[in-house]
Amino acid sequence: MRIEDVSLLCDYYEYTMANGYMENGLQDRVVYFDLFFRNVPDNGGFAIAAGLEQLADYVGNLRFSESDIEFLESKGVFGKRFLEYLADFRFTGDMYAVPEGTPVFPGEPLVTIRAPAIQAQLLETFALLTVNHQSLIATKASRIVRAANGRTVLEFGSRRAQGCDAAVMGARSAYIAGCGGTACTEAEKMHGVPSSGTMAHSWVQMFDTEKEAFEAFVELYPHNATLLVDTYDTLRSGIPNAIEAFRKILLPKGITECAIRLDSGDFSFLTRRARAMLDAAGLKDCRIIVSNALDEWLIRDLLDQGACIDGFGVGDNLITAHSDPVFGGVYKLVAVEEGNGDIVPKIKISENVTKITTPHFKRVYRLYDGDGMAIADQICVHDETLDDNRPLEIFDPDAVWKRKTLTDFTAEELLVPIFRNGRKVYENPSLDDIRSHCARQLDSLWEEVKRFTNPQRYYVDLSQKLWDVKHGMIAQHHGLDPERGLRGPL
Amino acid sequence: MRIEDVSLLCDYYEYTMANGYMENGLQDRVVYFDLFFRNVPDNGGFAIAAGLEQLADYVGNLRFSESDIEFLESKGVFGKRFLEYLADFRFTGDMYAVPEGTPVFPGEPLVTIRAPAIQAQLLETFALLTVNHQSLIATKASRIVRAANGRTVLEFGSRRAQGCDAAVMGARSAYIAGCGGTACTEAEKMHGVPSSGTMAHSWVQMFDTEKEAFEAFVELYPHNATLLVDTYDTLRSGIPNAIEAFRKILLPKGITECAIRLDSGDFSFLTRRARAMLDAAGLKDCRIIVSNALDEWLIRDLLDQGACIDGFGVGDNLITAHSDPVFGGVYKLVAVEEGNGDIVPKIKISENVTKITTPHFKRVYRLYDGDGMAIADQICVHDETLDDNRPLEIFDPDAVWKRKTLTDFTAEELLVPIFRNGRKVYENPSLDDIRSHCARQLDSLWEEVKRFTNPQRYYVDLSQKLWDVKHGMIAQHHGLDPERGLRGPL
Repeated sequence: MRIEDVSLLCDYYEYTMANGYMENGLQDRVVYFDLFFRNVPDNGGFAIAAGLEQLADYVGNLRFSESDIEFLESKGVFGKRFLEYLADFRFTGDMYAVPEGTPVFPGEPLVTIRAPAIQAQLLETFALLTVNHQSLIATKASRIVRAANGRTVLEFGSRRAQGCDAAVMGARSAYIAGCGGTACTEAEKMHGVPSSGTMAHSWVQMFDTEKEAFEAFVELYPHNATLLVDTYDTLRSGIPNAIEAFRKILLPKGITECAIRLDSGDFSFLTRRARAMLDAAGLKDCRIIVSNALDEWLIRDLLDQGACIDGFGVGDNLITAHSDPVFGGVYKLVAVEEGNGDIVPKIKISENVTKITTPHFKRVYRLYDGDGMAIADQICVHDETLDDNRPLEIFDPDAVWKRKTLTDFTAEELLVPIFRNGRKVYENPSLDDIRSHCARQLDSLWEEVKRFTNPQRYYVDLSQKLWDVKHGMIAQHHGLDPERGLRGPL
Repeated sequence: MRIEDVSLLCDYYEYTMANGYMENGLQDRVVYFDLFFRNVPDNGGFAIAAGLEQLADYVGNLRFSESDIEFLESKGVFGKRFLEYLADFRFTGDMYAVPEGTPVFPGEPLVTIRAPAIQAQLLETFALLTVNHQSLIATKASRIVRAANGRTVLEFGSRRAQGCDAAVMGARSAYIAGCGGTACTEAEKMHGVPSSGTMAHSWVQMFDTEKEAFEAFVELYPHNATLLVDTYDTLRSGIPNAIEAFRKILLPKGITECAIRLDSGDFSFLTRRARAMLDAAGLKDCRIIVSNALDEWLIRDLLDQGACIDGFGVGDNLITAHSDPVFGGVYKLVAVEEGNGDIVPKIKISENVTKITTPHFKRVYRLYDGDGMAIADQICVHDETLDDNRPLEIFDPDAVWKRKTLTDFTAEELLVPIFRNGRKVYENPSLDDIRSHCARQLDSLWEEVKRFTNPQRYYVDLSQKLWDVKHGMIAQHHGLDPERGLRGPL
């Protein structure tokens, strides 16, 4: 992905609106947009945030080329002033975001942008696209990696990915969430995701016999000898031929590490038979890798049934998040600044209660207990500071009578500054650091929240101040006295 | 997408195999690979082929840069000769493919590549990725467009697409299949897909009142005035304010064309109410556009219920093919050439009967009846010519006693030459020509095949000669006399 190729990767209405802001003198009005999501894919207990690095690159480097401007001009609806503005476009605002690899929950901002309206509007499509896609894949990959329970999971899905970017960025997101590597070579060159792979069925078919195909491969790659054993008949031909090739070529060299891969058949049955055959042949270090239509459910079932599997290659179901292939992040106006700098919260009211937005410029704290386990997140108004040396009463924002006072806890801010006045103030962590951060963060979540089926809800609370702002605005919208209308916690 | 950025968008095992072919003297052996699929997504009756233009660009322009070679060298397993080969890589083979926009069926080749083994292997990942992704989206979009029954469908999904490429190429595929346009501006600049759009909720929120927001918009864009009416209250505020703005600003200018968009609520109820309100206000030319969680099923249900809708904006469900987000194309070795030019068919045997490949270098005919309706496809061996001036007996390849003799029919070849000896011999049709081709081809399919639920199976038959080759090889694999073993049709 090159920024110059995606400068117009933006919904057309962002341009009609941006031009309209300019024509109506609203272009410099400072606005706050939050990027957040409402539901975890697959009804999971949490999502994994990803895509920030690419978003920050885009925000910092977005320019409009002459050909972009000419193209927009050809549409015949944009003002000259707007086109000139685009020709000199630079992001001048602030951006805050949750670091990649962090578990995140519905309703809390993953990204907040404070910028002149015209700029904030133009960033919408790409911000959503990038964060939605990468968070989707990281979230799905995290499930699959957890199902594998410590065994290696490799991302094998490029050929079924939804485009080039989906393959490369999907491999990156999968690695963040704990996959051991990818088949996608470009993902290593571009992002440092370890790539690997050995042979397809066509290799075996290119030789007169499977035996010759295996021996040629092991001779050539003795230190990375994974033989695909299901081209003709796994138990009667593939595994016996593999055993013969390993014993003939590897053992005399003193190499005991090797592997077989099964790409079809019933893995519960076949891998137990394969393990027995390999062990009987003295190949205890030979690993068994499987690949074919795997997802978190099948992996867990196979392991429950005692399948002898050391590693999983996962394709379609991971790279497209097949079971729930959309991460529904949205980008909503939450506040505007008055000329005097006052921040005026904005709300989007909807008939559908879950679609009512939480207004205002916010900060978000994650609260940990004395053992370092995450208890809840609390969203506050930007000027509130949460003091973890003092007891804190938290409450369920939907059932305000459910309250709890925390004493022994620590609070960490989730959103960190990425841009200030258009200058990037965030140094991208290395991909391996993001991956480690993700693993550590997962350790702070209760197993109850990580369960696949009907996980325990993790609370994202509002501070009393923010709750009052939100419910005051809702009351006002419905013609009720904001002070006396819908007050919940008193 | 730039070719130089995707040269390594290739599964790592393609390189280990390609290097292995070279080390074993197999690199120049001429091989034939077919790209085909086994199942239509969503259990539909057919798919729409797409992605050929990008695949041909890739095949013709694939080069490996110095940094690509350095990267591969750093992996420490590739031979010097292989790396030198890559540095001078040029595709020198032949390629045949089904033109984009053509309805296609399981089991028939969409692409056939004849090339030295080392080249054919390296093309696998990208060929699959591109054809799979674009055919997936074209197939899904075709369903949605058919459900809309002549009404406009616009592609609105960039923000939920699985990456940049998915947004832009997805918009292209959707247009091929009959969508009227896209929200994705880049898709117009890059591929000529008409882009359009008007306003988001944030436009309305930026003004003090909805009325002001609407009036400002209509003043600015009188010829493209689509007002989003659900920011506050569709029936009580949005539509009345829109009517007022249209009447105040458009009618005096003599403009009667305009539109409202609903993005939430029950469209069956709301659009009938909206239509009545608009008509009563003398705005009979005001169109009603809806967008929100639409797919082919909801669109059909809404129209069945008498919803008054003139156009649909479809997001997630189209751009990710949400209900079945993988097009399972595969790329299989089907033949190799001997030194003397003889073509030796190759087969991949599987326990799973549906996974047994059809061997050989093939040609495919689509057979039409006297009214121009497609009857069946027939796959032949490459050296067979189907003469549509003589009666033709076709038969079900799985139930060979089901036979039929065609008399009044015409036969058209599906696969056309794209490359010959590395030279591109195919001129890319314009996107609008592809779209028209798709529409015409759809008209040649029976409604029975186009049904969403349990469609009639369209037959893809084998010629007697190809059937004999395939079943002779299966018999031989199982130790049966190929002449006497499994003969079906005699």
